[in-house]
Amino acid sequence: MISEAGITLPQLADLSAPVTPEGARLLDILGGHLPRIAEAAAAHDREGTFPTEVFRALKADGVLSATVPCTFGGLGLSSVHDVALAVMRVAEADAATALCLHMQLCRGITMSYELRHADPAGQALAERVLWLMGKDDAVIGGALKDAGPATELRPDGADRWLLSGRKILVSMAPVATHFVVSTRTRPTTGPARLASAFLAADTPGLTVPDNWDGMGMRASASSEVVFADCPVPEADLFLRGPVGEVNHAAMAGQTVSSIGLLGVYAGIAQSARDLAVAGIRRRGGDPAAAVRTLVAEMDVKLYTLRTALGAALLHTDHHAGRTGDDPAARGLRMIAPFQYAKLVVNRNASAVVEDCMTLTGGASFTAGHPLSRRYRDVRAGWFMQPFTYADAIDHLSAHALDLDS
Amino acid sequence: MISEAGITLPQLADLSAPVTPEGARLLDILGGHLPRIAEAAAAHDREGTFPTEVFRALKADGVLSATVPCTFGGLGLSSVHDVALAVMRVAEADAATALCLHMQLCRGITMSYELRHADPAGQALAERVLWLMGKDDAVIGGALKDAGPATELRPDGADRWLLSGRKILVSMAPVATHFVVSTRTRPTTGPARLASAFLAADTPGLTVPDNWDGMGMRASASSEVVFADCPVPEADLFLRGPVGEVNHAAMAGQTVSSIGLLGVYAGIAQSARDLAVAGIRRRGGDPAAAVRTLVAEMDVKLYTLRTALGAALLHTDHHAGRTGDDPAARGLRMIAPFQYAKLVVNRNASAVVEDCMTLTGGASFTAGHPLSRRYRDVRAGWFMQPFTYADAIDHLSAHALDLDS
Amino acid sequence: MISEAGITLPQLADLSAPVTPEGARLLDILGGHLPRIAEAAAAHDREGTFPTEVFRALKADGVLSATVPCTFGGLGLSSVHDVALAVMRVAEADAATALCLHMQLCRGITMSYELRHADPAGQALAERVLWLMGKDDAVIGGALKDAGPATELRPDGADRWLLSGRKILVSMAPVATHFVVSTRTRPTTGPARLASAFLAADTPGLTVPDNWDGMGMRASASSEVVFADCPVPEADLFLRGPVGEVNHAAMAGQTVSSIGLLGVYAGIAQSARDLAVAGIRRRGGDPAAAVRTLVAEMDVKLYTLRTALGAALLHTDHHAGRTGDDPAARGLRMIAPFQYAKLVVNRNASAVVEDCMTLTGGASFTAGHPLSRRYRDVRAGWFMQPFTYADAIDHLSAHALDLDS
Amino acid sequence: MISEAGITLPQLADLSAPVTPEGARLLDILGGHLPRIAEAAAAHDREGTFPTEVFRALKADGVLSATVPCTFGGLGLSSVHDVALAVMRVAEADAATALCLHMQLCRGITMSYELRHADPAGQALAERVLWLMGKDDAVIGGALKDAGPATELRPDGADRWLLSGRKILVSMAPVATHFVVSTRTRPTTGPARLASAFLAADTPGLTVPDNWDGMGMRASASSEVVFADCPVPEADLFLRGPVGEVNHAAMAGQTVSSIGLLGVYAGIAQSARDLAVAGIRRRGGDPAAAVRTLVAEMDVKLYTLRTALGAALLHTDHHAGRTGDDPAARGLRMIAPFQYAKLVVNRNASAVVEDCMTLTGGASFTAGHPLSRRYRDVRAGWFMQPFTYADAIDHLSAHALDLDS
Repeated sequence: MISEAGITLPQLADLSAPVTPEGARLLDILGGHLPRIAEAAAAHDREGTFPTEVFRALKADGVLSATVPCTFGGLGLSSVHDVALAVMRVAEADAATALCLHMQLCRGITMSYELRHADPAGQALAERVLWLMGKDDAVIGGALKDAGPATELRPDGADRWLLSGRKILVSMAPVATHFVVSTRTRPTTGPARLASAFLAADTPGLTVPDNWDGMGMRASASSEVVFADCPVPEADLFLRGPVGEVNHAAMAGQTVSSIGLLGVYAGIAQSARDLAVAGIRRRGGDPAAAVRTLVAEMDVKLYTLRTALGAALLHTDHHAGRTGDDPAARGLRMIAPFQYAKLVVNRNASAVVEDCMTLTGGASFTAGHPLSRRYRDVRAGWFMQPFTYADAIDHLSAHALDLDS
Repeated sequence: MISEAGITLPQLADLSAPVTPEGARLLDILGGHLPRIAEAAAAHDREGTFPTEVFRALKADGVLSATVPCTFGGLGLSSVHDVALAVMRVAEADAATALCLHMQLCRGITMSYELRHADPAGQALAERVLWLMGKDDAVIGGALKDAGPATELRPDGADRWLLSGRKILVSMAPVATHFVVSTRTRPTTGPARLASAFLAADTPGLTVPDNWDGMGMRASASSEVVFADCPVPEADLFLRGPVGEVNHAAMAGQTVSSIGLLGVYAGIAQSARDLAVAGIRRRGGDPAAAVRTLVAEMDVKLYTLRTALGAALLHTDHHAGRTGDDPAARGLRMIAPFQYAKLVVNRNASAVVEDCMTLTGGASFTAGHPLSRRYRDVRAGWFMQPFTYADAIDHLSAHALDLDS
Repeated sequence: MISEAGITLPQLADLSAPVTPEGARLLDILGGHLPRIAEAAAAHDREGTFPTEVFRALKADGVLSATVPCTFGGLGLSSVHDVALAVMRVAEADAATALCLHMQLCRGITMSYELRHADPAGQALAERVLWLMGKDDAVIGGALKDAGPATELRPDGADRWLLSGRKILVSMAPVATHFVVSTRTRPTTGPARLASAFLAADTPGLTVPDNWDGMGMRASASSEVVFADCPVPEADLFLRGPVGEVNHAAMAGQTVSSIGLLGVYAGIAQSARDLAVAGIRRRGGDPAAAVRTLVAEMDVKLYTLRTALGAALLHTDHHAGRTGDDPAARGLRMIAPFQYAKLVVNRNASAVVEDCMTLTGGASFTAGHPLSRRYRDVRAGWFMQPFTYADAIDHLSAHALDLDS
Repeated sequence: MISEAGITLPQLADLSAPVTPEGARLLDILGGHLPRIAEAAAAHDREGTFPTEVFRALKADGVLSATVPCTFGGLGLSSVHDVALAVMRVAEADAATALCLHMQLCRGITMSYELRHADPAGQALAERVLWLMGKDDAVIGGALKDAGPATELRPDGADRWLLSGRKILVSMAPVATHFVVSTRTRPTTGPARLASAFLAADTPGLTVPDNWDGMGMRASASSEVVFADCPVPEADLFLRGPVGEVNHAAMAGQTVSSIGLLGVYAGIAQSARDLAVAGIRRRGGDPAAAVRTLVAEMDVKLYTLRTALGAALLHTDHHAGRTGDDPAARGLRMIAPFQYAKLVVNRNASAVVEDCMTLTGGASFTAGHPLSRRYRDVRAGWFMQPFTYADAIDHLSAHALDLDS
């Protein structure tokens, strides 16, 4: 991982420290925001409201454009490892805030990636998006998951496409200034292609019902976004391969844009552990045998998830830079550690939170307890893409056994 | 287990069928109520309201006095196994309802137990309580857990005791007609003793703040109950041994009154599994490798919890009747399988619910989804008494290794 | 479960006591043999020799014909539960001995089953086999697993069949007086059928190379048996359905004949636990936190496996007697708990043995240590038929999801 | 980690590649030996014989002095990470060979450590030992574990000490040219001190009974060494602190000298996995659902153990060089990741081997099967020092909860 500043820090793979100076700088800036984020968390969780004031403060400090290259007005952070670490620290204060922050930070990472890897039209679009993020404080929601029939782009007969459909689980939707929408074209002739469409939030036909009511991540405003024939110029599309084609090369980009999200669940686990351990210390006395065993085993779980994730992040940064490698081979090489780490993080983070509730007792079962929030939040990790558990097993076993799928 | 009807049914220990005719009869009656209970569950969970209409209907059908002997006007159900099975079936529809129902059903079991085992004063009180349950439809809340300093009975100078203190997690408190309160005496002379006090809900000084706001079990109205110098005649006390004395014999009664509650968590797991499997069947097609593996492994977990609990319940019924055995040895013999089963049920029920969410996908993460409710409810099992996890490990290891404690 | 003596004992499903008087009687007889079996175990394990002297003594006491009905000269034990319990007790002393004993005991059970369920020719053969076991002390090895091409019966042109092929893992082969061989016919016309052939050990063409060299179960003499055109009269065949036909009804018989073998692994776990706990007690002092936690958790695992197996055995006995049920439905109903219990027993038995080694320390890593033997023996449970793990998952998930296979 | 060559390689923490040029060079040299090591493994395991010919060849290629600094005639490998990686590769071929090789390689590491950290007398001794390793091909066994009463050094009345006692589990003892023996002084006056004594194998009074008979690691010749008043000059002692004193600083050295041994268990797991996967590929066809799931989950376990260990090794190398830090704090900081990694490696390596046997079937239960050897070998990891499981839980929980012990 070579940072813009050209300095290499030790890479210990246990999420204990940033590996780039830009990552260190982002952590410094975030440090001042964490107490306020932690303090606001309970009320936003209870009410299911987005922490607007938190994001306003983060924006003012340049956090929302941290992953935008310096030339476009950002902090120039390019290490996915350090994005995950920043997200982890925020998640220790509030997971829903961290989830939304990751969406914004990974946008800078992926747009920088498009800037290097996309075709000329894609590069031009990426450049435009990065300027919007770096100079105009754009907040960009990612709309991935279809509700019902797949979102589609139809030709409008003139020179634009019309986007229609419905997306769910679009975090930050009510405050986003723009959206990147995963969709597909349905051209009059020729094959349908996968595409990512870039739209301003005030595009005609775009509405945000704001109907999020999650079990957890309640402050993430992960609501629906509805597209009713929204006009999209061709220049606002990243065009991908044909629909249905297996695309191993694309797995590199998927890894780069998504793996950092695992920092959220690492942060949930870490802060749950710290809360529970602080409680035991406060109670004092000679802890019971099971308490000692559970605490030590919990720290084993935490180390397990930190190192599996830390190593996968270093691997991601390393291979993200190896643009000369065969793209399909690189995609396959990058997605596997991501998926391994995802399973390790999800399982161990859940287990740590449950251990913490056991150590803390019945108080943690009340709706507003910090561990209750973490118990509800932590479960979201299982639903992040790619992959579902079933798809991960299919992919990983096919890879290991040299099967077609 | 010999039922009042003198019939013995096969005991298969997998919670597939009742072992007494009275148990079969209770299941029959409940069958008619289950659809309504299931239907009401979502709204009561969302609002955190007690299902008053459900309990009114159950009362009208004699369900609330099912464990009161026939001579006192009940159904005469005396098998803890069958209580747990009834509670499990109700929990498949709604866990919070089942939790409250268990509190009432175990009251009949424990009062019948007092009728056989208590001193004459205790027997007279037990008889009175059973009449109230059988004839007057008393609904009796159990107040176990102190909030802050321990609840106490002080002499009032005349011939009564005055109860003061604060209890939390008293399920059904807002609708209970009476309470049984675990407390201790603080006599002017002589040693303090453990005691259970029986009070009507309209006793002067007794208030129910109704401030329950649980992460799960939201319809159980498990609120506070406050006692401000509530007068309690001596005749309304079950007096136990001195405070601080280890009492192995009492573990028999604790097992009889509490183990049935594990049926709640078995029911949560069973219904989560049925929901998830129905969903996969509805989707049709050829399930992915991981789906097949997860479904089969989930059924292994379910079998594990059903048989560990089923066997512990048969063991409880068997030893409950062996009143000639040494009381301390019997208490120790009874509590161990209860605690083993508790750990097996809690762990496997949680794991089954998590597997179901994985199989069902992101929809199960919305606040109102039936699996989200079960994910929140199932965690309550870890906080039921006796024991905490730490105390269970201390007790079981001391027993295994022949240590003093 | 109704025993020949017509008495019903309490069924506690935790493998603590027999459920029939005949089972109680067998345990009594075995009690006298256990010290000698335990004492002989280490040397037979080291040398890989069969405990001939042990089996001679068991035969002299009628143990080898315990499951032969009284009318044929046996003890009349018909409960699979009690067979498993007997096998468990023997396995506490030596697992390899128990493995061989189970093969003999389950033969009596399955022949009694054939006596009731087979066609007239099968009934006649079963009767003959039972007489041989009850009066002539026949020791009958079961040959299931083919090595290489499937064993086959070809017509000899006259009125007999000729058996050829090679079987492996035939426990007790060097001392067996007879074999039952799972094979198939290859008739000149008509469909090939599954069949079980009954042969005396001195049949021309039958050889026993005695080349067993297992990692564990070293005293079980589970060697090869080679059949070179061994003549078999038609009357010595149990003829089954066509090769390749799914036969759910047959799963009832498979369950009855195989589930008792799980007692071996329950016995390994129980005795490992007792050894480790005795060692900790001997060391005295105040055990470390992890030791207390591990001991209690180990007892949870042991309870888990005992109750899963106990319940599956009661279920087997119950349904074995329900001959009026639809055969396919009954087969499906019986095999599922067997397979659930198999997974629970295998996993927990392995885990208990590993915990015991951790509690005991490096001494248990020497070749001759009782825990080393159990660590090697316990792994055999994963390889018993039916099913392999992969087939079990296929079967159980197909059943749960209503798939064709 | 700065290598002697001053080059820094990427540190990916997944044990995929060396981090120093010297590590890369050692892997190169080892590459030529691996086929022969793998080939010799089965026979040495069966017979329990030490692979003398293998070690002769390794010695000839300079492998046995790989960790001796170049100035003393070695390869100059100083990264514990790369030692572990080399040991892992060898363990893929044969674990017992790797265990012995680690003992020799860690000797070079610890002597280099003494050269920097010890008092002048210790430095002089370390220098002497390194010359013996680098120039004279010394093979040095480490004798840690007492059998019976603790080994002791008594003054001989003149100017030497006399060592007496008995050590077990001394790998390579029959071929060692020298031993380093963990012991204590019993001086005529003054406090007893911990000490490491350095003795030639032909010291009068030193005998090696060669009575090793392990369940696994059978080729490691981990036999007894008996000391009967062996004379030891004061100059051949590393003198440590007083007996019984807690010494957190010493945990740094313990970590440096022992953590690399975990590479053995990583190698066992990796090679078991490769064997099982190759077998499934050879069988071809469409693998069953459970096979696909098990293979993918096995790779998750393997990734978990590789990254936990990889990160702990990078951490060790990093802090080994930070000699300016407070020694006690550094020791505590270093031992925790080592212990976390040890638990993660032991558990996951065992689980992977068991999964492989399940995937491979009954053939793997024969004594000579490569998976049977790995199943027996892998268990040794639980017994390596420091710590026992109980001591690890005590240490880690005390550290987390800020307890005295």
